[in-house]
Amino acid sequence: MSTTPNRNFWNIEASHIAKNTYNPIRSIVENIVTEPNPNKLMIALSIGDPTTFGNLKPAREVIEAVKESIESGLFNGYAPSTGYQKAREAVAEYSSNEFVKVDPKDVILCSGCSCALDLCITALARPGQNILIPRPGFSIYRTLAEGLGIKVKSYNLLPEYGWEVNLDDLEAQIDENTAAIIINNPSNPCGSVFSRGHLADLLEIAARYYVPIIADEIYEHMVFPGRSFHPLASISVDVPILSCSGLTKRFLVPGWRMGWIIIHDRQNILDKEIRKGLQCLSQRIIGSNTIVQGALPAILQNTPQKFYDDVIETLYEHSRLAYSHISKIPGLKPIMPDGAMYMMVYINLACFTEFKSDLEFVQCMLMEESVFCLPGQCFDYPSYIRLVITVPKDMLVEACLRIQDFCERHHCKTSQTINELGRIEIEY
Amino acid sequence: MSTTPNRNFWNIEASHIAKNTYNPIRSIVENIVTEPNPNKLMIALSIGDPTTFGNLKPAREVIEAVKESIESGLFNGYAPSTGYQKAREAVAEYSSNEFVKVDPKDVILCSGCSCALDLCITALARPGQNILIPRPGFSIYRTLAEGLGIKVKSYNLLPEYGWEVNLDDLEAQIDENTAAIIINNPSNPCGSVFSRGHLADLLEIAARYYVPIIADEIYEHMVFPGRSFHPLASISVDVPILSCSGLTKRFLVPGWRMGWIIIHDRQNILDKEIRKGLQCLSQRIIGSNTIVQGALPAILQNTPQKFYDDVIETLYEHSRLAYSHISKIPGLKPIMPDGAMYMMVYINLACFTEFKSDLEFVQCMLMEESVFCLPGQCFDYPSYIRLVITVPKDMLVEACLRIQDFCERHHCKTSQTINELGRIEIEY
Ligand SMILES: Cc1ncc(COP(=O)(O)O)c(C=O)c1O
Ligand SMILES: Cc1ncc(COP(=O)(O)O)c(C=O)c1O
Repeated sequence: MSTTPNRNFWNIEASHIAKNTYNPIRSIVENIVTEPNPNKLMIALSIGDPTTFGNLKPAREVIEAVKESIESGLFNGYAPSTGYQKAREAVAEYSSNEFVKVDPKDVILCSGCSCALDLCITALARPGQNILIPRPGFSIYRTLAEGLGIKVKSYNLLPEYGWEVNLDDLEAQIDENTAAIIINNPSNPCGSVFSRGHLADLLEIAARYYVPIIADEIYEHMVFPGRSFHPLASISVDVPILSCSGLTKRFLVPGWRMGWIIIHDRQNILDKEIRKGLQCLSQRIIGSNTIVQGALPAILQNTPQKFYDDVIETLYEHSRLAYSHISKIPGLKPIMPDGAMYMMVYINLACFTEFKSDLEFVQCMLMEESVFCLPGQCFDYPSYIRLVITVPKDMLVEACLRIQDFCERHHCKTSQTINELGRIEIEY
Repeated sequence: MSTTPNRNFWNIEASHIAKNTYNPIRSIVENIVTEPNPNKLMIALSIGDPTTFGNLKPAREVIEAVKESIESGLFNGYAPSTGYQKAREAVAEYSSNEFVKVDPKDVILCSGCSCALDLCITALARPGQNILIPRPGFSIYRTLAEGLGIKVKSYNLLPEYGWEVNLDDLEAQIDENTAAIIINNPSNPCGSVFSRGHLADLLEIAARYYVPIIADEIYEHMVFPGRSFHPLASISVDVPILSCSGLTKRFLVPGWRMGWIIIHDRQNILDKEIRKGLQCLSQRIIGSNTIVQGALPAILQNTPQKFYDDVIETLYEHSRLAYSHISKIPGLKPIMPDGAMYMMVYINLACFTEFKSDLEFVQCMLMEESVFCLPGQCFDYPSYIRLVITVPKDMLVEACLRIQDFCERHHCKTSQTINELGRIEIEY
């Protein structure tokens, strides 16, 4: 270094990636200074972790599989950064169906679905390019992309059509810098599940503009009776698709950080660069926990159908319960989900003139009722709130009652009427 | 999109990060097409995984701790992205000593030490800046940095001084774009351990130029009898240090992917931006496996001293054995390690005129003797080979004998002498 160094004090700035990796949910939630009502037990309908309340537990078979894996002493060393062959075989089998056979070489195990999405976005897009994400949508796509200097452009979902994609809007968002479309099905925060026909429409657009798809299918198979889940890749014959999933939600083990990417590349388009890129990127952190990898074949093969069915039954029951209750609350309009673990509720803010936004609404409800929901803002969708339906039933009922009280108290019309006539049920 | 899209075929390129994330070890090793000698059992002295051969196993207490963690059912949900409070407390206690008390808020759990290094490099340096790395050194620093467009500049270690840093060279490498210095102690590939005095010298340079340090201490405490390991942070009072470590090596569980960063920031310099940056970056993949996190307090508190001592005794015995044997092989000069799990051996290529490089040497040795070592090239240090000393003793002895045969056969002088006089022992 030159004899007159121009560094003469401590001044350590964070990189752009560090500065731009920003989680909107966290910053919105952290800025809420409101305290819950000390006289009412807190009910958090905000936490996307199905295990929080202890009512939903992983299957006994899954726990046993991990115990055997650790006991065996065989899974303590490094695995290949994309995962053990046997674990990848198990995921390939689990993810195959009559329409699509997955080859183990097309599976990359990752540290959770977040890491899977991180690798896919990082491999496919570069600074200056953009990826298309759903609105409303899960915030991690934005967090991951913007951290890397990749732009996001949102395409709208249509609440009045079961949250289907507005196809014209999707098409309009595609430009020459669009590196990928993210499709999240079933959806967080909507709980919606796309039909075969709608998925085919999405694929047609991707094919027409030659844009690959990142399919976030972490809620795969989590659909209510009468609905079907269709893996996007089972419908496509040409569009290159990176499907991201994992154990997190369906197996109720989010902390285990076991996710995966499946490379669907019927036309060998991703073979040119992306496959190798994903493999190289997986070496940055050398893959996912080997104890869980060792257990993966048993987890995926031995989890009984009854476990899956019971979880779905609970979620379905809770959804109907919350839906029918909230439907009757003045000023609110819930949208019945078809799967996943969430329900979106529209707030007619015209009925609650005290509140300028969904954020003010949830803050006041927290303060008065100790019920907390995420404001739609967190999903780039104001005037809504998102409810998590995995909480125990009695808690959910209690929460609905408190939301009702809150809304009746603050509704311009009802509050007046109530003052005059006492408490009544009014349609909004 | 405009009516005449300029995307009219599938052409999906990988991003710069994906293209530039490149592991030199992997590409050197994968380009070796040589087959081992089919008549000799393969002995790989190349694998930096101490668990490969089954002779070194994690402590029973560690396995029990993980079994209890999974049995408890308490650690299946999401942990904070920086780790459970209790797990961070355990790491803080484990990493505190008479000189430095670590606060749990300064601990960030990561998915292995690789992920810890990834977060530190990503947070501290930006494209166009550089980080200083040791030569010879572990390749991951380069892999991580160059992937992000961060340059690496190497500072030399001095084999004749127990692989101490060439201080003049280190100082000369610092420029106005230097974002961090990486210090790896104990060292992979050298097996060297720095003295207190030498660490103080390194800190003095960092302080003088106001460059923060990333201390890769994944081999902490793994030092042979008579040597001491000094955590860099226990010596510094002013230089901001990010120490990276984990369970990987000392606890013999590399596959578990449990690493951590400890933020040492006595002067609150990293508080300005870096701490928050690291926290935000940790949200990209939402931290490390919770089963291991749940077990971490028990792992760090209950592993008996005897376990650590036994591992060290084995490594020390193996080192001495390999050292004394290889010292007698013509054309080779081993450098006795003081810790970690490796030994560097100098190849006097002037004695082996058939081979133009360390790579040709190891390839031919693989082909003839089925013994494989990593060529120094993998560590940016030609004319050396790196031996892993964790293999079982009989395998190590057999490997030394085969290396000896190989060298005697190919040594210009001895091969001649042997032809004339029969096999003899010759100093190189
Ligand atoms: C739509 C969606 N994708 C991905 C994730 C992340 O999953 P993981 O915890 O496996 O990283 C979540 C978690 O809530 C999610 O809702
Ligand atoms: C010096 C050094 N640092 C970091 C690592 C990575 O450790 P981990 O497996 O915990 O990611 C290694 C692994 O060999 C290493 O030798």
